[in-house]
Amino acid sequence: MKVTLSALDTCESSFTPLVVLELAQDVKEETKEWLKNRIISKKEDGDDNDDFLTMAECQFIIKHELENLRARDEKMIPGYPQAKLYPGKSLLRRLLTSGIVIQVFPLHDNEALKKLEDTWYTRFTLKYQPIDHIRGYFGETIALYFGFLEYFTVALIPMAVIGLPYYLFVWEDYDKYVIFASFNLIWSTVILEVWKRGCANMTYRWGTLVMKRQFEEPRPGFHGVLGINPVTGRKEPLYPSYKRQLRIYLVSLPFVCLCLYFSLYVMMIYFDMEAWALSLHEKSGSEWTSVLLYVPSIIYAIVIEIMNRLYRYAAEFLTSWENHRLESAYQNHLILKVLVFNFLNCFASLFYIAFVLRDMKLLRQSLATLLITSQILNQIMESLLPYWLQRKHHVQVKRKVQALKADIDATLYEQVVLEKEMGTYLGTFDDYLELFLQFGYVSLFSCVYPLAAAFAVLNNFTEVNSDALKMCRVLKRPFSEPSANIGVWQLAFETMSVISVVTNCALIGMSPQVNALFPESKLDLVLIVVAVEHALLAFKFILAFAIPDKPRHIQMKLARLEFESLEALKQQQMKLMAENLKEESREGRKEEEEA
Amino acid sequence: MKVTLSALDTCESSFTPLVVLELAQDVKEETKEWLKNRIISKKEDGDDNDDFLTMAECQFIIKHELENLRARDEKMIPGYPQAKLYPGKSLLRRLLTSGIVIQVFPLHDNEALKKLEDTWYTRFTLKYQPIDHIRGYFGETIALYFGFLEYFTVALIPMAVIGLPYYLFVWEDYDKYVIFASFNLIWSTVILEVWKRGCANMTYRWGTLVMKRQFEEPRPGFHGVLGINPVTGRKEPLYPSYKRQLRIYLVSLPFVCLCLYFSLYVMMIYFDMEAWALSLHEKSGSEWTSVLLYVPSIIYAIVIEIMNRLYRYAAEFLTSWENHRLESAYQNHLILKVLVFNFLNCFASLFYIAFVLRDMKLLRQSLATLLITSQILNQIMESLLPYWLQRKHHVQVKRKVQALKADIDATLYEQVVLEKEMGTYLGTFDDYLELFLQFGYVSLFSCVYPLAAAFAVLNNFTEVNSDALKMCRVLKRPFSEPSANIGVWQLAFETMSVISVVTNCALIGMSPQVNALFPESKLDLVLIVVAVEHALLAFKFILAFAIPDKPRHIQMKLARLEFESLEALKQQQMKLMAENLKEESREGRKEEEEA
Repeated sequence: MKVTLSALDTCESSFTPLVVLELAQDVKEETKEWLKNRIISKKEDGDDNDDFLTMAECQFIIKHELENLRARDEKMIPGYPQAKLYPGKSLLRRLLTSGIVIQVFPLHDNEALKKLEDTWYTRFTLKYQPIDHIRGYFGETIALYFGFLEYFTVALIPMAVIGLPYYLFVWEDYDKYVIFASFNLIWSTVILEVWKRGCANMTYRWGTLVMKRQFEEPRPGFHGVLGINPVTGRKEPLYPSYKRQLRIYLVSLPFVCLCLYFSLYVMMIYFDMEAWALSLHEKSGSEWTSVLLYVPSIIYAIVIEIMNRLYRYAAEFLTSWENHRLESAYQNHLILKVLVFNFLNCFASLFYIAFVLRDMKLLRQSLATLLITSQILNQIMESLLPYWLQRKHHVQVKRKVQALKADIDATLYEQVVLEKEMGTYLGTFDDYLELFLQFGYVSLFSCVYPLAAAFAVLNNFTEVNSDALKMCRVLKRPFSEPSANIGVWQLAFETMSVISVVTNCALIGMSPQVNALFPESKLDLVLIVVAVEHALLAFKFILAFAIPDKPRHIQMKLARLEFESLEALKQQQMKLMAENLKEESREGRKEEEEA
Repeated sequence: MKVTLSALDTCESSFTPLVVLELAQDVKEETKEWLKNRIISKKEDGDDNDDFLTMAECQFIIKHELENLRARDEKMIPGYPQAKLYPGKSLLRRLLTSGIVIQVFPLHDNEALKKLEDTWYTRFTLKYQPIDHIRGYFGETIALYFGFLEYFTVALIPMAVIGLPYYLFVWEDYDKYVIFASFNLIWSTVILEVWKRGCANMTYRWGTLVMKRQFEEPRPGFHGVLGINPVTGRKEPLYPSYKRQLRIYLVSLPFVCLCLYFSLYVMMIYFDMEAWALSLHEKSGSEWTSVLLYVPSIIYAIVIEIMNRLYRYAAEFLTSWENHRLESAYQNHLILKVLVFNFLNCFASLFYIAFVLRDMKLLRQSLATLLITSQILNQIMESLLPYWLQRKHHVQVKRKVQALKADIDATLYEQVVLEKEMGTYLGTFDDYLELFLQFGYVSLFSCVYPLAAAFAVLNNFTEVNSDALKMCRVLKRPFSEPSANIGVWQLAFETMSVISVVTNCALIGMSPQVNALFPESKLDLVLIVVAVEHALLAFKFILAFAIPDKPRHIQMKLARLEFESLEALKQQQMKLMAENLKEESREGRKEEEEA
């Protein structure tokens, strides 16, 4: 209660609460006073809070300002002698690591949120998402994720539509499969290239396409011996690169390898279970045991999910321990670690079934079980369960607030108490990862299980809604973050589509229908398959190279922008020169007069 | 004689002649007068010719100034009513296309040239080239070519050294070949990546690494209906994109395909000749006919060179006729056309021998003959023959000048007359192309003919010298041109090294030694080879991704530069704001005084 009072004190009618800074319960008065003064003194020469900026932008600016509150001559945080400071150290960082500030988060704007929800997901109609509104409320990074999710879903529809008859009419002719697989390979290349153009279109509209790379400050958790940064000449912690390399190669790499080995070990247990279930089914042959056949796959899918989540924590801990100076380096190392493990963990069993066991029936069954189970699990774990918990909590808070019968404005108090208990959105990483793995399920073995695309489309239609629910009602509002594209995920999806060319060619080469065409010489078959694969890969690269990353009209506009800024620069310099001349002549005249 | 008089008139002691503008013999007086006035009026508000800039930089500036002399209110070139002008049209362009100006070229600086030659190529010692001096004299683009040539030669030495014993001791064990080929593949990837770093190092030193892309003006030969450029809003010729596309797809593409077909047809004739020579040799069996065995290859190598050169002219004509607006687009289309044809023309017969005939002995023999013949031909055609012709001409000119016994300064007159007859350097295109094809000979079939690298190294040692001779003594001095890297050639070399992974794996898979290891199942062999090939390709891509394109210290310096420019910008804006405030307060006080 005490926590929110300072905000409520200043609550006039014109005041819109934007960001909450939650302090620990037992913070000393002097610390609070000092912190308030530092924030206010920064704020005074700051911006006006007018309608020119969206609420998300205001919150982004406040976050940036708070993070750049830096120690001047303070040696420690007043009241906390153990919380040391040095000139230039971010105050917020130290307050957070000392446990004085518990969290900083932006508040929801209930009115705008209601409006957004109405156009977004509450009515189940088939229409595009209000991406621009999402961007206005949550910022570019999250809007781009929803844009990509929607684009990807729509792009999968042709594959799903073409794949359906294969399932319905049980087409087993090899030539039809070849056509389907070839279509898939070309299609996946095209959609990834076209996305770049669509993305450029969107971010041009938002003004973040030609975002100047900001000068990157050290990331929050970075620590080291205080020294002079060779680039900025400022005091900041330094950490020798060789120590980081040692940590990466002597600890992280072996650990990742161990995890990969463990994942393969679990996979072998799954195959043992599978064999046991099959033998049981063959012995008894009842209907009850035929259901049992699916049980190992389902258990394995659940175990995979659990392992992925556990590994995620370990990877975060390790990457954080590697002590990267920049947030971007941290992210790259984390993404690499997680991608490699998740790829192996999810797809190793399928590769094993496809290329070692060569059992296409089992492959189809495993693929279907893994895909569907992981999708259902994800939807439940990610949105529905937290939403249910959240609703329960909501009711409790309401009851408490009504019991208090506070004479202060209870709405804001209630909102802050509610939102501070909500989960924190940890960035788009997990959402993209889910799509990435789904893309793998759909494209790696597309010629064996053409129905995968249809399931993916179905899942994504609900995914859009459950993700929207998650963002609007389950999690704390995240700080908005500008971005120009989906970054490293573009590369990850493209790599997956290259790998899928290889797997699909191999699968087609192994199919009995194709093998029947070459009854005498398997060698010719393999050579033809390899030749086709190389041709497809070459075609993919040429296609990716030939499709421009930005649509022509965006290129033109950018060129125009560049030209105009060059012209403006020229004119500004001319004006400056003219003014200097005028100034000089005026000084000259004055001197003459004085003389 | 009349031609150079206007320059000689103004020839004072402090005057250094930089650029020659050669007019046609019968140009009218009024045109000359007008042109002189236009050039001088431009020059007056131009730069001082002091020691701050190198001579090459001064010449570059003069070229830029001349090319940007644009028509104002002139409707035609005075004296030439048929040479139409419109506002903004480049005068030099119209003068050149109307045949009034024959050429513009920079003069050599004999003193500096002598110095450069002494440290460069006149003494045959093993040492690095004076790249920085070359850059000072010829500009960055040419210095980068010589830098690349030298780097590439040095980088080939390990391959040549490892390849030699294979030839000397006739090692035919498959495992040694596999090791050699693997080394080659990794090595070629590494050297291309390391070059990027070396290149960044050099261009950072020269200040061209972070060259701002200039706003590109339409290229000289571009023509079209006069209209408004949508980007700049200026009047300039416009040419609809669809017309260009039609020309490309309906004329250029079929023509290129026809040429490719013709090249393959010539190849088949070569194989007929080869068979005929072999049958002749087998019939008679004399030593004379064993020499005859090499004749078809030599003839074919010469024919290939001739076809390459003829095709080059056709490609230039076609690309020019496609009427690209930008020089960069023109260059890209030209390079693509020429690369595809040259690749097929040079390597088709080798591919045919390797993978259709599967005759490794013939492959080795053809490869050696093609490589050595093309290298010898190139050296003769490119430098020695023109040098010899040039020397002959030089003697004639000297005799003429002495016969004149002119009382004017004969040295400059002689120099201009000599240099204006020299050939024009057409850019680094042909030089890079030669290296590119050499790289193909060395890497595509390296496991069959490990001696290729040694020949390439030998050739390049002399190539450095003959190219240097060509630049200094045979050709007109080219205008210097800044550049940040070797551009599209980096991509071309990387593509070649990817293709060579495929060919080498296939060759090793076909070798009898490897085949002997799998006596029962050819299928297993092919599968293993394909797996190894994929692993190598994946490794290559990861390696290329993992090696940073810029060395760490350059990255740091660039970051520092960016940081400092941002800081300077901030301070400049602060100062500007302060001055505006001061100005306002002064005006305010004045008004008060007046009131």
